Amino acid sequence: MASVGRRLMTIGEAAAALRRREISSLELTEAALARIAERNPHLNAYITVTAGAAVDDARRADAELRAGVDRGPLHGIPLGVKDLYDTAGVRTTAGSSFFAERVPAADATAVARLRAAGMVLTGKHNTHEFAYGTTTINPHYGPARNPHEPSRIPGGSSGGSAVAVADGMCYGALGTDTGGSIRGPAALCGIVGLKPTFGRVPRTGIVPLSWSLDHAGPLARTVADTALLLQAVAGHDPADPSSSTVRVPNFSAALEAGVTGLRLGMVRGPHHDQATPAVKGGVAAAVRVLAAAGAEVSEVSAPLLDDAEALSFTVSGAEAAAYHLRRLQTAPEGFGPDVRDRLESAASLPATTYINAQRARRLLTMQIDAWFGHVDVVVLPAAARTAPLIGPNASAQMRAFPSPRRPFNLTGHPAISVPCGFDEGGLPTGLQVVGRYWDEATVLRVASTWERLSGE
Amino acid sequence: MASVGRRLMTIGEAAAALRRREISSLELTEAALARIAERNPHLNAYITVTAGAAVDDARRADAELRAGVDRGPLHGIPLGVKDLYDTAGVRTTAGSSFFAERVPAADATAVARLRAAGMVLTGKHNTHEFAYGTTTINPHYGPARNPHEPSRIPGGSSGGSAVAVADGMCYGALGTDTGGSIRGPAALCGIVGLKPTFGRVPRTGIVPLSWSLDHAGPLARTVADTALLLQAVAGHDPADPSSSTVRVPNFSAALEAGVTGLRLGMVRGPHHDQATPAVKGGVAAAVRVLAAAGAEVSEVSAPLLDDAEALSFTVSGAEAAAYHLRRLQTAPEGFGPDVRDRLESAASLPATTYINAQRARRLLTMQIDAWFGHVDVVVLPAAARTAPLIGPNASAQMRAFPSPRRPFNLTGHPAISVPCGFDEGGLPTGLQVVGRYWDEATVLRVASTWERLSGE
Repeated sequence: MASVGRRLMTIGEAAAALRRREISSLELTEAALARIAERNPHLNAYITVTAGAAVDDARRADAELRAGVDRGPLHGIPLGVKDLYDTAGVRTTAGSSFFAERVPAADATAVARLRAAGMVLTGKHNTHEFAYGTTTINPHYGPARNPHEPSRIPGGSSGGSAVAVADGMCYGALGTDTGGSIRGPAALCGIVGLKPTFGRVPRTGIVPLSWSLDHAGPLARTVADTALLLQAVAGHDPADPSSSTVRVPNFSAALEAGVTGLRLGMVRGPHHDQATPAVKGGVAAAVRVLAAAGAEVSEVSAPLLDDAEALSFTVSGAEAAAYHLRRLQTAPEGFGPDVRDRLESAASLPATTYINAQRARRLLTMQIDAWFGHVDVVVLPAAARTAPLIGPNASAQMRAFPSPRRPFNLTGHPAISVPCGFDEGGLPTGLQVVGRYWDEATVLRVASTWERLSGE
Repeated sequence: MASVGRRLMTIGEAAAALRRREISSLELTEAALARIAERNPHLNAYITVTAGAAVDDARRADAELRAGVDRGPLHGIPLGVKDLYDTAGVRTTAGSSFFAERVPAADATAVARLRAAGMVLTGKHNTHEFAYGTTTINPHYGPARNPHEPSRIPGGSSGGSAVAVADGMCYGALGTDTGGSIRGPAALCGIVGLKPTFGRVPRTGIVPLSWSLDHAGPLARTVADTALLLQAVAGHDPADPSSSTVRVPNFSAALEAGVTGLRLGMVRGPHHDQATPAVKGGVAAAVRVLAAAGAEVSEVSAPLLDDAEALSFTVSGAEAAAYHLRRLQTAPEGFGPDVRDRLESAASLPATTYINAQRARRLLTMQIDAWFGHVDVVVLPAAARTAPLIGPNASAQMRAFPSPRRPFNLTGHPAISVPCGFDEGGLPTGLQVVGRYWDEATVLRVASTWERLSGE
C-alpha cells in the first residue's frame, strides 16, 4: 500500500506536462474524475463531486493556455476543497444536516484565489460534522476511509481531503486545522499537510469551528506542491480581520537549499514520550538524517505543554458553542449526538473559564515562541500513533494520546506534517516540523529536505 | 477657574528653561511638591506622594545635565502615574484594599521608560478601585475632586492623574483607558488625554482591568506635551504579547503642519445626538474652525455604534471577573460594594455571551475602520456632558449618556480628548479626535491645530 499517493504526477510535473502540450487539463481532469468514480464509493472522500463544472473548468483552462493566458502552476490542475469552504453555486454542507442544501452565493476567499490561479475544482471533501465530530463516522455523510487500509480512519476533520489527495482523486486540497485537522489526516494518510501561521491564509467564507484556533491550509502529495498551493492562497484579505498584512514571500524559492547550519530542536514532553515506538522511531530517524545533512540538533521543552490539550478543548468548545448557540437552542436534534453533547457541555462554560484559558494560552505561547530564540525549527511527531480502525472507539484511541498538533493551534506557529515512514502494519506516520511566525519557508525547506533524503 | 491647568510651564517650556539653566529640576520638583502639599489635601489626586525620592530624582537629573548627560525633553520633569502602574519600591494599590501594602519589585515597562527618559516621579495618582468602581468615590482612598469645582468628579478611572495635571501638581501623567478612562477625565478636567492605538504602549506591570480593552497612555496640559510623553513610552515590549512591533514615528514632527486638505468626518449617532447642548456646541465650533483652516468635512456613521455600550460592558466585565476570580471567591468582602456587585454579576456570564460579544465587536470594528477609507480622522464629543457633582448619583448621571469613548476601546483606534471650551457653569468640555491605526501623529496634529486656533 506504500504506493498510495504516488499514482499521479505531482502538481509541478503536471504543470510542466501541460506546458509541453503532452497532456491537457481536460485529460488530467477526466482521469481524476474517473478515479473518483472508481474509488469514492469505497473511500467516501467527497460529499459532492462537481464533475460537469470540472470539465468546463478544464476546457477553459486548456483554451486559455492555447491562447497564451498562463495563470501559473495551478492552471488546469484538478484540486478539491474541504466541504467547509464556501463554493459559489455548489452546496457547502460543513458535514452537517443543517447545511445539507446550503448553496453559497460566493466563493470563500481561498477558493476564489485558487480559481484565479486556474484550478479545476473537482468537488467538496468529506469532513466531520461542522469539523467538530468526535469520530470520522459522520452521522450524516458517512465515514471517509483511509486509502492505506479502508477499515481505518483517515483522521479528521480534513479526512476527506487527505483521502482524495492520497488516493489520487485530485492533486491537492484545502483543509482547515483547529486542533490538528490538516496535519493529522496528512500523517495518517501519508501525505503532506501544512497549517500556516495564524493569519496567513484568509478564512473568509469558511464555516468556522473556533475563531481563535481555526487555520486554513493546503494538503498535497509533496512538499513542493504544498508550497505552490500555499502561494496561491496566502495573503491579506480585508474581509477577514484576522488575516495579516505581513508580506508573502516566495515559498518555493529555497526548498532545495538544505539544512546545513540549521538549528533544529527536538520537543521533549508528553507528545513525544507517549507516542508509539513506530512514531518515535520515525522521528528519531528523521532527526538523524537531518543531523547528518548538517542540522545542529538540540532539545527544547515548555512547562505548559502539558496543559495544551485542556486549554485547546476549553477554547475550541466555547467558541464552537458560541457559533452554534442558536441552532443548539432551537434545533438540537439536528446535530449528531456526539457534536450535540460536546456543544451543550461547552455552552455551560463560564466566561471566566474561557478567558482564563486564553490567559494561560498566552503564557504557553510565550514559552513556545521563546524556543525560536535559539532554534530555527522544532520537530515532534505529527500524530502519536497510526490510524485506528473505524468504529466507536476510534476517537478514544486517538485521544488516549496527547495531541502533538494542538499546541500550535494555540500559539499560531506554522507547522507541517510530512510522511515519515510506516509502522509494522504498513500504516504511514508523520514528522511534524514547526517554525517561527511567518516563516513557512523554513518549515517547508526542512520538510522538503527530509522528504528528499528519506526517498533516497 | 478657566486658568486651572495653566499655572505651570509646559513640558517643552520647562525643558528649554532647564537647558538655559534658568531653573533646575530641583526647583521644578520642589514647586510641584509644594503644590501637592497645598492642594492634594483638598483634591485627593495622589494616593502616594514620593517626595523624598522625587527630590533625589531631581538632584540626579540636575547633576546629569551639568555633566552633559541629556536624556531628552522629559529629563528632570516632574511627572506622576496612575496607581495602577507598578513602581519599584513604591506601593501600588490599584485603588484597592487588597493591594494596600503591595510594593512591586520592578517598574512597569512604561514607568521604566519614563525613568530612562529622566523623569522625576512625584507619586501615584488616585483611581477607582481596580479602575472598575462605578463612581470616583473610592471606598478605600476617597474621591479625587475636580480642580475646576471640587464638589464635582474629575471623571475616572484616571481621575487622580487628570486632577494632578490640571491643577499643576505635575507636568504630565500616565493613565489607563479601558472604556474611556484617560479621555473622560481629561475632558472633565480641561486637559489633554490620549488613548493610543491598541498595542502601541506596553502594558507590562500595569494591573489589568480588561486585557482586550485596556490601553496605556498619557495625560498632559498641551497636545505637544502629550506627544512627548507618548514618544517616551511607545514601542514594542517582548514581555507584553499584545504590544506591537510597528515602527514608532516622531510624534512631535508634524504638530504644526495644519489641516489643509485633511478629510474630517463628524460621527453621527447617539454619542453626538444625546450630548448636552454645550458639548454639541463645542464640537460644532471646533469643526467650523477646522473647516475654515482647510479641513474637508463630511459625516460618518456605523449601525453597530448603538451596541458599543453593551458590548463594552460584557467584554470588560467578563475579563475583569476572570482576573479577580480567586479574590472574588475567597475574599469578596475586600471589594467595595459596587465593584463586588459588578464582578459577581460578570462572573456568571456564559462564555458564549462573551464570545458572541467579541464577534459583534469585530463587526463594529470593521464598520468603524471602514470610515478611514474616506476620511483621515473623525471627531465627536469626548464626554457627553460636563462633570456632575460628587455623590451617589454621579455614575448614573454620566451613564445616562452613551459613552462616546467606549467604541474606540473596542476597536483599538487612537483617540484623543483635547479641551473644547466650557459650559455655562464654567466646566470644561472635550473634543475627541480619532484616527487610523498607528496614526497617532495625525490625531495629535488635528488636536494641536484646534488647540492653537481655539486659543487665538
